[in-house]
Amino acid sequence: MNESSPFITPAAELADRSKRLAPLARAQGIDAVLVFQHTDLFYFSGTIQKGVFVLPVDRPGDGTLFVIRDIQRARAESRLSNIRELDGMRSLPGIISDLGIDGGGVIGLELDVLPARQYLSLGKMFPKAQLVDASPLIRGIRAVKSSFEVEMTRRAAGLQKQVFREAESFFTPGIREIDLMARIELRYRELGHQGLIRMRGFNQELFYGVVSSGPSGDNPNYLDGPVAGAGLYPSFPQGGGERIIGKGDPVMVDMVSNVGGYISDAARMYCQGAFPDDALRALDAAVAAQEAILIHMHPGGSVTDGARAAWEAARTSGLGDRFMGPPGRGVTFVGHGVGLEVDELPVIIEGAPNTFEQGQIVALEPKFFLEEHGVVGIENTYVIGPSGPEKLTDMPEEPVIIE
Amino acid sequence: MNESSPFITPAAELADRSKRLAPLARAQGIDAVLVFQHTDLFYFSGTIQKGVFVLPVDRPGDGTLFVIRDIQRARAESRLSNIRELDGMRSLPGIISDLGIDGGGVIGLELDVLPARQYLSLGKMFPKAQLVDASPLIRGIRAVKSSFEVEMTRRAAGLQKQVFREAESFFTPGIREIDLMARIELRYRELGHQGLIRMRGFNQELFYGVVSSGPSGDNPNYLDGPVAGAGLYPSFPQGGGERIIGKGDPVMVDMVSNVGGYISDAARMYCQGAFPDDALRALDAAVAAQEAILIHMHPGGSVTDGARAAWEAARTSGLGDRFMGPPGRGVTFVGHGVGLEVDELPVIIEGAPNTFEQGQIVALEPKFFLEEHGVVGIENTYVIGPSGPEKLTDMPEEPVIIE
Repeated sequence: MNESSPFITPAAELADRSKRLAPLARAQGIDAVLVFQHTDLFYFSGTIQKGVFVLPVDRPGDGTLFVIRDIQRARAESRLSNIRELDGMRSLPGIISDLGIDGGGVIGLELDVLPARQYLSLGKMFPKAQLVDASPLIRGIRAVKSSFEVEMTRRAAGLQKQVFREAESFFTPGIREIDLMARIELRYRELGHQGLIRMRGFNQELFYGVVSSGPSGDNPNYLDGPVAGAGLYPSFPQGGGERIIGKGDPVMVDMVSNVGGYISDAARMYCQGAFPDDALRALDAAVAAQEAILIHMHPGGSVTDGARAAWEAARTSGLGDRFMGPPGRGVTFVGHGVGLEVDELPVIIEGAPNTFEQGQIVALEPKFFLEEHGVVGIENTYVIGPSGPEKLTDMPEEPVIIE
Repeated sequence: MNESSPFITPAAELADRSKRLAPLARAQGIDAVLVFQHTDLFYFSGTIQKGVFVLPVDRPGDGTLFVIRDIQRARAESRLSNIRELDGMRSLPGIISDLGIDGGGVIGLELDVLPARQYLSLGKMFPKAQLVDASPLIRGIRAVKSSFEVEMTRRAAGLQKQVFREAESFFTPGIREIDLMARIELRYRELGHQGLIRMRGFNQELFYGVVSSGPSGDNPNYLDGPVAGAGLYPSFPQGGGERIIGKGDPVMVDMVSNVGGYISDAARMYCQGAFPDDALRALDAAVAAQEAILIHMHPGGSVTDGARAAWEAARTSGLGDRFMGPPGRGVTFVGHGVGLEVDELPVIIEGAPNTFEQGQIVALEPKFFLEEHGVVGIENTYVIGPSGPEKLTDMPEEPVIIE
């Protein structure tokens, strides 16, 4: 790892993250936050090593990364001033007490991702402590990105734009979905895609995303997302399948970019030959739904109003029952935060109590599910600036026609 | 999904899995096992949908998959006779009681993978029940593969052999590790690799594995595995890096195959130009360590004896301190079970109390970490037959020399 790599999280950035979490944790009576999950560890320390990041809430500057394995790589990658070796989790009570944290106080944990077994083991380790859920706080501060994080996402979006532009040339007559997907994966990797896409939700997983053609896009699925595609096997029922892409089939490429851990999410339509008229109407309706949300996507704008506007636009188009899933089987959100994980906050859903905030990075994905043509729609990643959204995935939104 | 797809888990296979789990759970006083995690869900139901598989321990034939989303895809993919729709997890107490299970009894859960929040929520849902850990039982029966599973692994190994053979032609002068890795990924995908590789351990993740060249192989890491490689970013410190592969650099290709969910794990050495003499001695020592374990790898053979034999062989070669990691930073195991996850049982480690069993599929990965040449070694996946191991990844073990 190059010492001056742009992918090293700066020290000031790390310090700021702890400083933002501390008062929120304090307000909930938490004395210390113990961070175990790899993505959160990376967020607070800039490295992903086996260990724990301990944040004493009253002294966020003393936040310390304790590393079981590997301390050498942690020191090379992390700009935290406090990095210490840890011989094993059994030493946790001792180090907590060294940091002046009362082992009988309130300890914040990531209860949405920490396995039950580890939670129970921590309960035995700190028999007098109260273990509470700090995940909503962590996810909350992670939802608002710094300028460093926006720049990282801009890199991911830049990679995505290049690969989506090149994708036109990957189509050949009679190509299968999976082969098109594989060629896009190759280009992504050659140009610096980290490969792995992280999701936080239990049982949620993504391998780049989806290439779907015609009816493949209509496959129902287990994901907290509208489009899964056919996939190759029941063991992983998502992604491109073996279907040969036909002439005139609307093809959705919805494949996530990732540079330095940061995600950009976009989808575009491609077609070998003429794009069907009714698919074009659905795409226009998706763009209209996107524009309807964007009106609300400024600091202070209502998230629920944004989601409602999208569904209203979908209904106005006459395709309301085919919005965000096949009839009766759709998802209830139309967008989501992205960052180090693809399922970050905020969720753009009716009933959400929150407002949009400056610095949030949000992927909007209005999509329609047509009986004949499968999924037709669009996805873009935006950062919310002081006066409104900036589209990071600024590419043409018309279908790409391959003659 | 084709109704006659060879990747559909047969009904008899599913029935057998439940029948094997039931008496083990009964012996621990468990009344019902609730399976939530996607890989375990796939194992017991043949599909991965959002829901829960409920096994009444006294009547394993009544094991039922309850599906929140998507019931249609579950019915297309699963050969279970009992598949029912579930409107949400809040209905769980009702369905348990419908199955004649006492909500105040002992309920087995996957405590190693179930998030703490979901565990706590189940505790509130079943206030009179005792929630116990059924994961060791599930992992135990999953460690012994059926002939269906062996055949699936054979397909994965067949894919791996083809791609490893072709990999020789992917080398070009001045190619970077990441570009070689990307070309291997492309071929894997074109030929049917499912892409995603699952690991069970908390915070464990793998994206195919590693291509490392020369010193890159010496990178320490957070993984429960010996080799991580340089990786592209601190956000995902594993896999191929940007290093240009030099003439005479030992290159390790350690990239996992996956067909229909089942994993085959192998590593081979490649080299542009002459393979260095001391690297060749290390490779010979790795093969010797492999052969030393194999002597014990028959039904009833001692796992701890197998591991000890490997370390003895390593010491005999004079490279004992460089076995399974750089000096002082190695892992303590030399092999692991593979199946639907890459970190299955048994773990081949000194002190393991168990014996090898017929039907286990085990990857052995003796590897040495040389100061000058990085990682040099081998990995193979074996199935244990009635009289001993069969190598599923039967490929030449010499370094592949690219002129």
